[in-house]
Amino acid sequence: MRRALDIAKEGRGQVSPNPLVGAVIVKGNRIIAEGYHEYYGGPHAEINALKNCHENLEDAVMYVTLEPCSHYGKTPPCAEAIVESGIKQVVVAMKDPNPLVAGKGITILKKKGIEVITGVLENEAKKLNEFFIKYILEKKPFVIVKTAMTLDGKIATVSGDSKWITNKLSRAYVHDLRNQVAAIMVGIGTVLNDDPFLTSRLPDGRGADPHRIVVDSTAQIPLSAKVLNIDSKAKTIIATTEHTDSSKISSLKAKGAEIIVTPNTTGKVDLSYLLSKLGEMKIDSLLIEGGGQLNFSAFNTNNVDKVLSFISPKIIGGKKAITPVAGQGIECINNAVNLTDIDIERFQDDILISGYVKKRM
Amino acid sequence: MRRALDIAKEGRGQVSPNPLVGAVIVKGNRIIAEGYHEYYGGPHAEINALKNCHENLEDAVMYVTLEPCSHYGKTPPCAEAIVESGIKQVVVAMKDPNPLVAGKGITILKKKGIEVITGVLENEAKKLNEFFIKYILEKKPFVIVKTAMTLDGKIATVSGDSKWITNKLSRAYVHDLRNQVAAIMVGIGTVLNDDPFLTSRLPDGRGADPHRIVVDSTAQIPLSAKVLNIDSKAKTIIATTEHTDSSKISSLKAKGAEIIVTPNTTGKVDLSYLLSKLGEMKIDSLLIEGGGQLNFSAFNTNNVDKVLSFISPKIIGGKKAITPVAGQGIECINNAVNLTDIDIERFQDDILISGYVKKRM
Repeated sequence: MRRALDIAKEGRGQVSPNPLVGAVIVKGNRIIAEGYHEYYGGPHAEINALKNCHENLEDAVMYVTLEPCSHYGKTPPCAEAIVESGIKQVVVAMKDPNPLVAGKGITILKKKGIEVITGVLENEAKKLNEFFIKYILEKKPFVIVKTAMTLDGKIATVSGDSKWITNKLSRAYVHDLRNQVAAIMVGIGTVLNDDPFLTSRLPDGRGADPHRIVVDSTAQIPLSAKVLNIDSKAKTIIATTEHTDSSKISSLKAKGAEIIVTPNTTGKVDLSYLLSKLGEMKIDSLLIEGGGQLNFSAFNTNNVDKVLSFISPKIIGGKKAITPVAGQGIECINNAVNLTDIDIERFQDDILISGYVKKRM
Repeated sequence: MRRALDIAKEGRGQVSPNPLVGAVIVKGNRIIAEGYHEYYGGPHAEINALKNCHENLEDAVMYVTLEPCSHYGKTPPCAEAIVESGIKQVVVAMKDPNPLVAGKGITILKKKGIEVITGVLENEAKKLNEFFIKYILEKKPFVIVKTAMTLDGKIATVSGDSKWITNKLSRAYVHDLRNQVAAIMVGIGTVLNDDPFLTSRLPDGRGADPHRIVVDSTAQIPLSAKVLNIDSKAKTIIATTEHTDSSKISSLKAKGAEIIVTPNTTGKVDLSYLLSKLGEMKIDSLLIEGGGQLNFSAFNTNNVDKVLSFISPKIIGGKKAITPVAGQGIECINNAVNLTDIDIERFQDDILISGYVKKRM
């Protein structure tokens, strides 16, 4: 199963909004075939593993990271293909998270006399597909807030210098992360200050660009901004409000941007509404890369699932230097957004602290 | 030697400004005696180990974490006691850091035909005595800046709430740390806001209080402050400048406080001068526990040796919330204070990142 989870990861950046799935067929102590879900719309992991297998499947066991599907979607149901293959035992890491179909694939297998074992490395499988699970259950993208700060909590010096707080390894990790998510989001402040490309620049030129989303309540974005003048298969989406005049919207559309207009109860983009719209566009995962105002709005509206906080062991001081999460702030420590399931990784001297937001009621 | 280093730690909080030293006597594969430097002015580790030994010392080896002394101080020289004991082999972790005496103890041993091996677990021994080494070489205390912040870099919410950012385990660690240092320093802001006791409150009532130092350029401290009305063997020291009027100084002295008046080139206490004065008072180690202004001054004047940064996995936001190091700030990332030798510890969900300041030229 560990092998199946590993090969499932090969599909990262290619299968969204489908899940990452790996399947391994074992006979005795020998892996005789394996396969994973390689790209959106392509054959599922189980089918690829069966296709790669050239041995008799009697006495073989299939390990698969997600319950085999039971329905005709873009491909025929995997459960039936497994039945036909002659395999007599299937080990499943996790059931389908979709309550409408959960258990159906397993039932088909069992009815045909196949022994099914479930829950093997289930937590790992759930973590692997955290994007997919959130998307299936809530029809909204899984939201990651990524920050990078000094050990005294600053994302830039008093004069605005932020190049570079983190080291090359940390920055490479972020580019790899951008390749894994369906979309990346910044606030208009970040565009005005840094004018970023927001592409996934992997060392070998690999990597699918995520869609680029700029939260820009009054559409201040200059038409010369790099995200509006970029050669990329991914979309640039400007999220704005009814405050924005239609001529600006027309010129943004003329530049190829997609526009999402949200309600503006507070004069700002309504993030929860925006996330629902992104879910409708099949965006299953979103990386928010700050500014402090956007980050705070995301936390404050309870829309963040995971935090990735890079910390560089530097001190720069400055009462007026800016911090990763700003805005109005939470008044009482007891009302803080608490993270759980904390993990620590090191990239040379840089430290990455990651955690999941404990949902508040 | 590892055992010798371990028992040396038993002297923490008792031997300052002497070094922590442990000695273990081994015969064959058996520890036949051990001892450590227990309290300032008391017998050295080697003497205690010899005293605890009731076997013939022929063929015995002594492991000692620091070069045996060669001079008559508060106690007779250990090197001679070892010679008289009949031990024929001595293993030493590190030489005496004092350039005036380094190597002299080893020379005495060798002259008397004792085999001496040096440099065993030398780095561990140096870390164990980092306070002592700095104090001996520079006649100033080893300075630790300790901070505690949220994962978004705040030491309090926008409304000033800071109880508690870190968990009980982290706070207990800080009380233990206070027991290990000779003095603890805060800025006047911390006294005015929090009115702390600044004592070492260990669970069982153990623990020597460190001296309490308040940096207070114009002596704003109220006479009712807890640090001025406390029953403790340690001193309360107010560091101020010539701006302060003498009547306030008299009333502080009447409360039992000691006053250090520093030059005031910038209207503020001159930290480098203050540290020299503290060195003269035999204070070998100093824990600075913020505010942001004092922390920044300490970094900016190149007076910090080590940083202990507690991070609690919470997000509170707030553009106006305060951060651990404030002041004017450093303008360019390239001029940041860089830390090295980074270590990470976990206290349940809290994370402690520690590192040493790379000295700038």
